[in-house]
Amino acid sequence: MDDTTHRTGRFPRRSLLAVGALGAAVPAISAVALPQTPASAGLAVVKKVTIYAEALPGGLYGYGLEPGKATVPGPVLEIYEGDTLEITLVNTTDKRLSIHAHGVDYSTDSDGSPLHASYNEPGQTRTYQWRSREMSTAPGRRFMPGSAGYWHYHDHAMGTDHGTGGVAKGLYGALIVRRRGDVLPDKQFTVVFHDMTINNKTAPNTPMFEANLGQRVEWLAIGHGNLFHTFHLHAHRWVDNRTGMLESVSDPSPTIDNKDLNPGSSFGFQVIAGEGVGPGAWMYHCHVQSHSDGGMSGIFLVRNADGGMPPGAEEAIERFRGHAHTTAHQGVHQ
Amino acid sequence: MDDTTHRTGRFPRRSLLAVGALGAAVPAISAVALPQTPASAGLAVVKKVTIYAEALPGGLYGYGLEPGKATVPGPVLEIYEGDTLEITLVNTTDKRLSIHAHGVDYSTDSDGSPLHASYNEPGQTRTYQWRSREMSTAPGRRFMPGSAGYWHYHDHAMGTDHGTGGVAKGLYGALIVRRRGDVLPDKQFTVVFHDMTINNKTAPNTPMFEANLGQRVEWLAIGHGNLFHTFHLHAHRWVDNRTGMLESVSDPSPTIDNKDLNPGSSFGFQVIAGEGVGPGAWMYHCHVQSHSDGGMSGIFLVRNADGGMPPGAEEAIERFRGHAHTTAHQGVHQ
Amino acid sequence: MDDTTHRTGRFPRRSLLAVGALGAAVPAISAVALPQTPASAGLAVVKKVTIYAEALPGGLYGYGLEPGKATVPGPVLEIYEGDTLEITLVNTTDKRLSIHAHGVDYSTDSDGSPLHASYNEPGQTRTYQWRSREMSTAPGRRFMPGSAGYWHYHDHAMGTDHGTGGVAKGLYGALIVRRRGDVLPDKQFTVVFHDMTINNKTAPNTPMFEANLGQRVEWLAIGHGNLFHTFHLHAHRWVDNRTGMLESVSDPSPTIDNKDLNPGSSFGFQVIAGEGVGPGAWMYHCHVQSHSDGGMSGIFLVRNADGGMPPGAEEAIERFRGHAHTTAHQGVHQ
Ligand SMILES: [Cu+2]
Ligand SMILES: [Cu+2]
Ligand SMILES: [Cu+2]
Repeated sequence: MDDTTHRTGRFPRRSLLAVGALGAAVPAISAVALPQTPASAGLAVVKKVTIYAEALPGGLYGYGLEPGKATVPGPVLEIYEGDTLEITLVNTTDKRLSIHAHGVDYSTDSDGSPLHASYNEPGQTRTYQWRSREMSTAPGRRFMPGSAGYWHYHDHAMGTDHGTGGVAKGLYGALIVRRRGDVLPDKQFTVVFHDMTINNKTAPNTPMFEANLGQRVEWLAIGHGNLFHTFHLHAHRWVDNRTGMLESVSDPSPTIDNKDLNPGSSFGFQVIAGEGVGPGAWMYHCHVQSHSDGGMSGIFLVRNADGGMPPGAEEAIERFRGHAHTTAHQGVHQ
Repeated sequence: MDDTTHRTGRFPRRSLLAVGALGAAVPAISAVALPQTPASAGLAVVKKVTIYAEALPGGLYGYGLEPGKATVPGPVLEIYEGDTLEITLVNTTDKRLSIHAHGVDYSTDSDGSPLHASYNEPGQTRTYQWRSREMSTAPGRRFMPGSAGYWHYHDHAMGTDHGTGGVAKGLYGALIVRRRGDVLPDKQFTVVFHDMTINNKTAPNTPMFEANLGQRVEWLAIGHGNLFHTFHLHAHRWVDNRTGMLESVSDPSPTIDNKDLNPGSSFGFQVIAGEGVGPGAWMYHCHVQSHSDGGMSGIFLVRNADGGMPPGAEEAIERFRGHAHTTAHQGVHQ
Repeated sequence: MDDTTHRTGRFPRRSLLAVGALGAAVPAISAVALPQTPASAGLAVVKKVTIYAEALPGGLYGYGLEPGKATVPGPVLEIYEGDTLEITLVNTTDKRLSIHAHGVDYSTDSDGSPLHASYNEPGQTRTYQWRSREMSTAPGRRFMPGSAGYWHYHDHAMGTDHGTGGVAKGLYGALIVRRRGDVLPDKQFTVVFHDMTINNKTAPNTPMFEANLGQRVEWLAIGHGNLFHTFHLHAHRWVDNRTGMLESVSDPSPTIDNKDLNPGSSFGFQVIAGEGVGPGAWMYHCHVQSHSDGGMSGIFLVRNADGGMPPGAEEAIERFRGHAHTTAHQGVHQ
């Protein structure tokens, strides 16, 4: 799904498109770019996208960019600060559901909550508008934040007024609002820690994310459900700030490789696959011991730079697939 | 409760008083300003305040600035770095209790803990002194932090040596130490996530916080009890740093709208009510699904700029009051 | 355990040695400094250390720098960015176990996990190599982080593929990678919040950490196990950034005295013992009420500057040792 619409203006020409899908087939949108509300020298656009909420096998539900293509998690939605995202949500299911976003601006009728009667009845189509903006001045030479962030979206209407049923069954995905000048990755992985699952799956069926040595990989981490979790990635680390990189030599943010990932929270960061450590079948997992033992574990396969399989990786994957977890790991349990 | 004592010196004339009470009637103190220990060009003051710990209906306990006026949470206490707060705590109850502060300096006899026999026996009056200071130099051109922060205070002596009984029953409140030059808000809301309650209440009886469109609102979020929580605010966001605003264009802190709020932690931030999203009955809630479904949810009512009710808000409030929660939500349970 | 090897180069002469052991006898390594892979003007070294994994009384296991000297937690391991740490792990037990590090670079065969068959069989000796590096440039004038951080290490192979058995029984410790120019402390304390224990102990048997008034004390906080925790220290506070100190007057990081300490996470900070508050038997504890009541509490004894006992401290310690906890606090329970 290519997007050949380029922005023009004082910033370098850059494609609006979100980077390609990956891993467990999480497609990214690249909506039609319609310059409209001018912001930042006319760069702001309105992106329009149609999303289909669908029932999936196993009692799951997903969001997708095309009919019959819904996934768990849903597609990565991505805009720049100043852009507006207009979502036409088609509810193909027989349940009440919605789409609610974190981080962006919306009026009450796009809140996605039953509180505002902002949802799709079964079979209904409804449009939600999410706006974004750049930072603005505040007293004391400070700034009110813009919308840039590694956010997420989810159902807020199925089952309960807080969308507990929809979230439990897979209606969630990543939303990125970039600040102009942000570094774009080669690949993106969405990882949702949700009750005792990753993306509603447990080991060994959790997503195996793949990249080649040296590729810039963006991780989009989202927490959901009822339990607390900590996201840990082996052999890679990032800065605990907005971008995951040091923004200057004096950036005081700590470097981490393990971070709380609790319901409603999200963060993102970029790593260079295998940098300093080499290719291999690296683990990512929840570091709560009973959770990793129970199936909240997966593989980040860093292939050789040419895409070949590094020594030992096959064996590691084989072990991962065959190993006995100490507790049951079927389905969502608490 | 007005405070007409103004500071003088190299900083702009600014009232010491904490801003007005709000929402669920949480009064703010504005104690007598007595210039004493000179700091920062003679601006440091000793504020003296009497606080009454009282039994309340329903088995609750509260702190208050006047006899018979105790609230849950207690009053917002607010000073500037360098100030000293001297609290005369009157225990009108038949239980051992105390007041323990986070973030400020105190000697062991003002620790508020049984470890130091620092508490009020039933009926006893006792004085606690909290001091504060500005940052000081450290090796390597670094600085040891001053006292500025969005802190809190709570009982540390009722029931157990850690005040579990007092905290469970409402003996807690917000404490702000401001750095000179900090932006003052128009309104303040104290939100305590405490076991399965907000301010020891559950929906639909949780506080409805009100502001007019465009007002600068300060949120004071405090965690207590035995459970983990995440604080989420709809349609508003803040920077995850000391003030909640970007301190410069190169401030690397992330912008968030959902943050862990676990026992003993506190944070604060300011938003412009309805900015970019308009007025409305916006939700705030714990994002742990079973907690929001169980009653940890409330309304942030952003009125029109003139104080009028925005379209749809009445209906939303009506829905909030009438809606059936999926689990019981009476009292404190785990 | 002295280390007289000094670095030379453009940085001030500074001993490589980790500072002395303390509190509950956690020794620090000061390995042989062998200049090897030149980095930062030839300062990078390879430190070699032999670690003995041993069974301890009470079903515990520990890491130690000498045979028969294993402790819980294990020794503080400490290097500078650019250094390599080569660990010869001697498994003196009859269980499969390993050593896995956070924050540093390692190849798959030093991952410490069964996924890569990277562990010691009973009785086996195996070498693990951990490398580190300084920050490097990234697009947009950003920087990929170096290895500097308050990290930790732990078993990843005993009991389950995630080392749940080894972690539960004490196989964990602190790992520090310093950035050149970082301030060195006078003392270090390792505090592991692990299920319902601190360093696998409960009050009143938790470690009593001691320092003299004015000493620069470094706290190394690590989370493990299955529960969430919050680390709180009375009468002292720190900045929530990489070093715990403000890195400049415009450092936007908040100052805190209570921080989430969940499984797999770690942080560190330095305080000046008793600064602004005086000497005394200060408390540190988990702020989850049922956890502190259940025994996750200890004493930070700040002695007088001359090492003498401050007034009231004996009594406080006596109360701490004698007080009745409201719930059982023997062993590890959830
Ligand atoms: Cu949400
Ligand atoms: Cu406290
Ligand atoms: Cu780990």
